[in-house]
Amino acid sequence: MSKQLPRLEVCLSPALLHLYDTEGAVVVIIDVFRATSTIAAALYNNAKAVIPVASVDECIELGTSIENSITAGERNGQIVEGLQYGNSPSEYTKDFIGGRTLVLTTTNGTRLLHMVNGANVIITGSFLNLTAVCDFLKNSNTNVLLACAAWKDKFNLEDTLFAGAVVNKLKPYFDINCDSARAANSLFETMGDKKPIDLLKDSSHYRRLSAYGLEKDMEYCASIDLHPVVPILRGQELVINSSY
Amino acid sequence: MSKQLPRLEVCLSPALLHLYDTEGAVVVIIDVFRATSTIAAALYNNAKAVIPVASVDECIELGTSIENSITAGERNGQIVEGLQYGNSPSEYTKDFIGGRTLVLTTTNGTRLLHMVNGANVIITGSFLNLTAVCDFLKNSNTNVLLACAAWKDKFNLEDTLFAGAVVNKLKPYFDINCDSARAANSLFETMGDKKPIDLLKDSSHYRRLSAYGLEKDMEYCASIDLHPVVPILRGQELVINSSY
Repeated sequence: MSKQLPRLEVCLSPALLHLYDTEGAVVVIIDVFRATSTIAAALYNNAKAVIPVASVDECIELGTSIENSITAGERNGQIVEGLQYGNSPSEYTKDFIGGRTLVLTTTNGTRLLHMVNGANVIITGSFLNLTAVCDFLKNSNTNVLLACAAWKDKFNLEDTLFAGAVVNKLKPYFDINCDSARAANSLFETMGDKKPIDLLKDSSHYRRLSAYGLEKDMEYCASIDLHPVVPILRGQELVINSSY
Repeated sequence: MSKQLPRLEVCLSPALLHLYDTEGAVVVIIDVFRATSTIAAALYNNAKAVIPVASVDECIELGTSIENSITAGERNGQIVEGLQYGNSPSEYTKDFIGGRTLVLTTTNGTRLLHMVNGANVIITGSFLNLTAVCDFLKNSNTNVLLACAAWKDKFNLEDTLFAGAVVNKLKPYFDINCDSARAANSLFETMGDKKPIDLLKDSSHYRRLSAYGLEKDMEYCASIDLHPVVPILRGQELVINSSY
């Protein structure tokens, strides 16, 4: 008897999340530009934890109550008033973030993370930790939902391209009967020998963030495997999955 | 001064429709398997009109009150009890449907059609009338939303592939800053010299309908330009756009 493979699905927008059964599954939150890239960078560089919060007020409040923490968040490419730092992964070097807790507020990624209920395990994914995430999912041998943060609920190219990269690596190990996964994989395959950034330069988010001069930041976010860690949610904190 | 091009966007699921501004736009309802294919076939073959309705009861009621009408609808690949015919475009030959009104109930396409408010013009699209739809949109010179009926709100490959075919043909004539449109176009481009059906054989809907022996039906739906008409909504009826 052939072994039944676990299921792998892709959800293209938080507005479609209710259509998927996350009960007992591993859910991967994907917000390439830039929440989950920044999370990977901070944890790889020895941040004690990253706490994703939805509002600026909550960010400030937690920043006050948690020792050795820093608060960060941007809106429209600018650090929000009352917070200390921005959303750029390159800000979070070892010297700066090592041993500290990053309290991070973002628009799309954080909201999605808080929407996922009942999932067995929640991790975050980005190109910066692509292989680490894939290895984790392969070893978990359970149903997986790749959940794209999108942009204000609209489908976006960068999160879908990353989901496609994961599907492409994992398709021998999962049962994939999900058109979103097929399309994401197809999008990834069009990349050929090019880099993710080459394809992402023609995306709405790239255009939006370029207007704030954030091209280098996006190139950083589109780099593969720079920060091979698996951020996993424990309570309200994202920490490095130590069993990886 | 360069002329500003109208906007072309793609909505991948009815659950995302609220994110798009359809005011004054042309909205193309896309339900390749099989509502909008059947609509193209019936109107091309001289049906007087097609009336899409959401419920079986409404279908029966209208069928009784409209002279020379027939009622049609399937659920799970079977003609619904109380209705006369199915959802297959090949059923609607000239001999059969000529001069008659088709009252059609479908799950996804009809619901989406009734969700679109404020649009200037609503037409339906499928591979069977691809070029006719593209010509209409090009000549309309106004904002366009390609609205995929999807499958119970889940993204599907066939509607997106068709949207991609339209984007591909129309991109010189529209301003496209929409990641869904970019991804749909990319999906279409992966087709290369193959036919739509080659790509669609690996889709959830193809698998679902194959279980009912509907492979030939889907091949029919994936044929390009067999029925070059533009079904346009006038009141509650879809009729052939006479100015095409």
